[in-house]
Amino acid sequence: MTTMASDIEIAQQTALKPITEIAAQMGLTEDDLELYGKYKAKISFAAVKRMQQHENGKLVLVTAVNPTPAGEGKSMTTVGLAQAFNLLGKKAVAAMREPSLGPVFGIKGGAAGGGHSQILPMEDINLHFTGDMHAVTAANNLLAAAIDNHVHQGNELRIDVRRVIWKRVLDMNDRALRHTVVGMGGKTCGFPREDRFMITVASEIMAVLCLADDLTDLKRRMANITVAYDLDGNLVTAGRLGVAGAMAILMKDAIKPNLVQTTENTPALVHGGPFANIAHGCNSVIATKLAMKTGDIAITEAGFGADLGAEKFMDITCRFAGIKPDAVVIVATVRALKMHGGVKKTDLQAENTDAVKKGFANLAKHIENMRKFDVPVVVGINRFHTDTAAEIACLTALCRSYGVEAGVNDCWAEGGEGGREVAEIVLRLMEGPKTPYKPLYDAEASIPEKMKKIVTEIYGGKDVIFETKAARQVKELEAFGLDKMPVCVAKTQYSLSDNAELLGAPEGFVVTVKDVRVCTGAGFIVCETGNIMTMPGLPKVPAANRMDIDENGNITGLF
Amino acid sequence: MTTMASDIEIAQQTALKPITEIAAQMGLTEDDLELYGKYKAKISFAAVKRMQQHENGKLVLVTAVNPTPAGEGKSMTTVGLAQAFNLLGKKAVAAMREPSLGPVFGIKGGAAGGGHSQILPMEDINLHFTGDMHAVTAANNLLAAAIDNHVHQGNELRIDVRRVIWKRVLDMNDRALRHTVVGMGGKTCGFPREDRFMITVASEIMAVLCLADDLTDLKRRMANITVAYDLDGNLVTAGRLGVAGAMAILMKDAIKPNLVQTTENTPALVHGGPFANIAHGCNSVIATKLAMKTGDIAITEAGFGADLGAEKFMDITCRFAGIKPDAVVIVATVRALKMHGGVKKTDLQAENTDAVKKGFANLAKHIENMRKFDVPVVVGINRFHTDTAAEIACLTALCRSYGVEAGVNDCWAEGGEGGREVAEIVLRLMEGPKTPYKPLYDAEASIPEKMKKIVTEIYGGKDVIFETKAARQVKELEAFGLDKMPVCVAKTQYSLSDNAELLGAPEGFVVTVKDVRVCTGAGFIVCETGNIMTMPGLPKVPAANRMDIDENGNITGLF
Repeated sequence: MTTMASDIEIAQQTALKPITEIAAQMGLTEDDLELYGKYKAKISFAAVKRMQQHENGKLVLVTAVNPTPAGEGKSMTTVGLAQAFNLLGKKAVAAMREPSLGPVFGIKGGAAGGGHSQILPMEDINLHFTGDMHAVTAANNLLAAAIDNHVHQGNELRIDVRRVIWKRVLDMNDRALRHTVVGMGGKTCGFPREDRFMITVASEIMAVLCLADDLTDLKRRMANITVAYDLDGNLVTAGRLGVAGAMAILMKDAIKPNLVQTTENTPALVHGGPFANIAHGCNSVIATKLAMKTGDIAITEAGFGADLGAEKFMDITCRFAGIKPDAVVIVATVRALKMHGGVKKTDLQAENTDAVKKGFANLAKHIENMRKFDVPVVVGINRFHTDTAAEIACLTALCRSYGVEAGVNDCWAEGGEGGREVAEIVLRLMEGPKTPYKPLYDAEASIPEKMKKIVTEIYGGKDVIFETKAARQVKELEAFGLDKMPVCVAKTQYSLSDNAELLGAPEGFVVTVKDVRVCTGAGFIVCETGNIMTMPGLPKVPAANRMDIDENGNITGLF
Repeated sequence: MTTMASDIEIAQQTALKPITEIAAQMGLTEDDLELYGKYKAKISFAAVKRMQQHENGKLVLVTAVNPTPAGEGKSMTTVGLAQAFNLLGKKAVAAMREPSLGPVFGIKGGAAGGGHSQILPMEDINLHFTGDMHAVTAANNLLAAAIDNHVHQGNELRIDVRRVIWKRVLDMNDRALRHTVVGMGGKTCGFPREDRFMITVASEIMAVLCLADDLTDLKRRMANITVAYDLDGNLVTAGRLGVAGAMAILMKDAIKPNLVQTTENTPALVHGGPFANIAHGCNSVIATKLAMKTGDIAITEAGFGADLGAEKFMDITCRFAGIKPDAVVIVATVRALKMHGGVKKTDLQAENTDAVKKGFANLAKHIENMRKFDVPVVVGINRFHTDTAAEIACLTALCRSYGVEAGVNDCWAEGGEGGREVAEIVLRLMEGPKTPYKPLYDAEASIPEKMKKIVTEIYGGKDVIFETKAARQVKELEAFGLDKMPVCVAKTQYSLSDNAELLGAPEGFVVTVKDVRVCTGAGFIVCETGNIMTMPGLPKVPAANRMDIDENGNITGLF
């Protein structure tokens, strides 16, 4: 089955089953589905509700070391493991995030797994899919337009245009929109003010979509969103502007989970797509819970390294959803650890066990961190064909000496078959009794206390400082009594610290919080650190520039 | 069948047929469709191509008097007539535009017909539908991001940031985005420049979608789009930025026509949605041609009054597509003519035949205009329950004395049955021999000549003046040899003139052109007149504020 075909070639060669057959594996009928073509479907409210009466399956969380330009393959491993569980006789359902067009056209290309462990149809999933991203964009920007319109039409709520919190979004990497001035052009064009755009995945609407129980909860949460301060310094919520109903109408289909299949016809719920660096990084609770209700094993992933996605999965998603993983798989690659050990990307081909040993510090820190949440941990070594036997042996031995089981995963080349070793370890570890939920911090602690705990215990830093503006924002939130919520840290994904250059397992660093904002709809507080940006830019040669489509609709360059 | 139920109530009570059955009426099989739920489908490239071998049916264009706040019901009439033709034993297929979210949440509410003459499912059509609008937005904004990124990454093409023509778009009424500054924030955020956002329907991508023959033509046209001047004053096209392939990928599904059905299960192709005031106002050529290939009669509509949509249908769409309507129906209402005759909206209830007589001047001008294109003309009087018998009789007599046949249309209350009278007149008039295509102007004429012809012959004005900037733009386009294309006038829809206050049939006015830009992808030149804006604003109480959705997904307030 080994092949060097590209992801899109493999995708196009795969024989897909009608999505109705995939749904049947989950106990869903044709009536439970809203078809989007033959291979994609949304699952109705009624079906989601009916399934709630079923027993919960086990939950496996897939996370990773800090990403490097070498690539880790976390989504690929998630898909591969779901396929492997099926081969081992367990009914597995994957619950994953939807890709954003920003990275698709930026550096990364597609985000639907790879090789023989993909979710399909990958072209659709990587492009407009079932329109959820666009619905989030529209709902977000309807609220933004309503704010400026309210001010323009008399400003009954006395919104302070200097202190509008709500930002417009686009699902695009567009750095020119990071800092803007809107409302110029005189009396017919509203009141001028400074503004910013974010990428759609950073919208609080996306967070709300991923944390809501149902459409009613979604609407309630959207009405609760804080959009601005008034001239007296009070907070103004979206509900006051009267558009929460219209926003919910825009989200009525987006809240229904999407069903697709993997290259081996395993069901995959792909729903919601916040980034883990500038948002909370986990797919929707609705999809994860449905995967648990329809599978013996639900397998989900959290974005970027375990310092970001997994920490937020544990401290935000699990806290709100009342769930806890039965096992955590940390994806690591020889190549990534070599980069964490100081090797340049151009030198990765050469065997270098010393670098693996040095770079292991990054993996070790993530293992240690996951143990703090009191869950069984497995390392999934995603093999690349350039990895040498000595390097793999070195990494496996390092894991063993650290007291953690590790398995090698060949899911890229071999699909589910390549995931047997890791899947078997996971199954064995999940046989033990389930431990109670154990978050890292108490949500009732102050914002600085929560941040300090995350920085010192998860990131391995020595302290956190709040810049002047951020410190003032903390004081304000305390005065409003809005600080007793989980914290969602916006931070570079490349390092455990807030400095992208510090690879491996840095120590002694101080994390700088430059902005603090409350998400009263999502129910968390965002602390922006370092120089993280909520609107990415395109690289010198964007992935978009290699893409094309022929007269028959065949796509090239999307991978 | 008469009822005072709201549009959405009627829509929700209608028994829809599976879209596969509707497709079968058109000679399309299940394999020709990409289903979006049970009641919406896209039609495959292969099916569109196969149908091209069929004979053409007749083509009926529905247009109207200048719209007033009283409402005219042009889309409703289009749907009703399609249903009426079916009752008369003719296989009719409607070809219509997709609504934009801007008006849906702004003043207008939905745009899918009304009463017992709607296209369904109206909630979906009025919201995200099959995602075409969002695809246009994404393709438009990918190009915009590529422009600013190119400048940021070294600006090899020497793009002049003072002269970027391409604008970002959102499918939203958002006046604060009419005039903006982007690229602020220092070195990491690009080069600052003035910018504007338009509403998506005004994007040249939308025009290109509606004028393209197929995906290859779409890609070629998108590559031809002019995006900016360089520092030497040369034009820069989208193709130079290398993203036309990626833009085409984003549009790969949007270019496939959408099939839905009417309240009486008549097929309706709903595809593409440019406004007729700030764009060319006609649905896609692909859909109109497919309607002609699959129906004995294709019935299409052009936006707003006949001065805008119908003129552009004749001079732009028909010219490029090589088609010509066999008949034109001009929709008029007693209420609208009374307003054109000077009656205020609050006084419309009172019988006023004098005002009907006075306001008839507006209808008469549109009749005269349509005759210039050498097509049979019918007036469709859309009856409101407040119209008196005397008013209807007065209007009918006025039409007769003007030498045009008029029929009364009750399609709102009675569906197709209410359209019999108008449909019968149309059928009779179409029995005559087809006349050759006769546009208003020669595309080879200069821009001022073409504008003067439109202003004097269609609008009834005495002259056109180009403001300093517009005159300079004309000179530039002449120097580039890019002035030999049809003209797409951006003008208020409320008046035959460029002043929204001048109702009826004003004379002696001068139209002011303030901006001229070339659309080398679409193949026309946009002349913006008066104070028309390409980004609408929300009213004091937007339609969004009356909308809501309950826990079962039932929508209220969308009509």
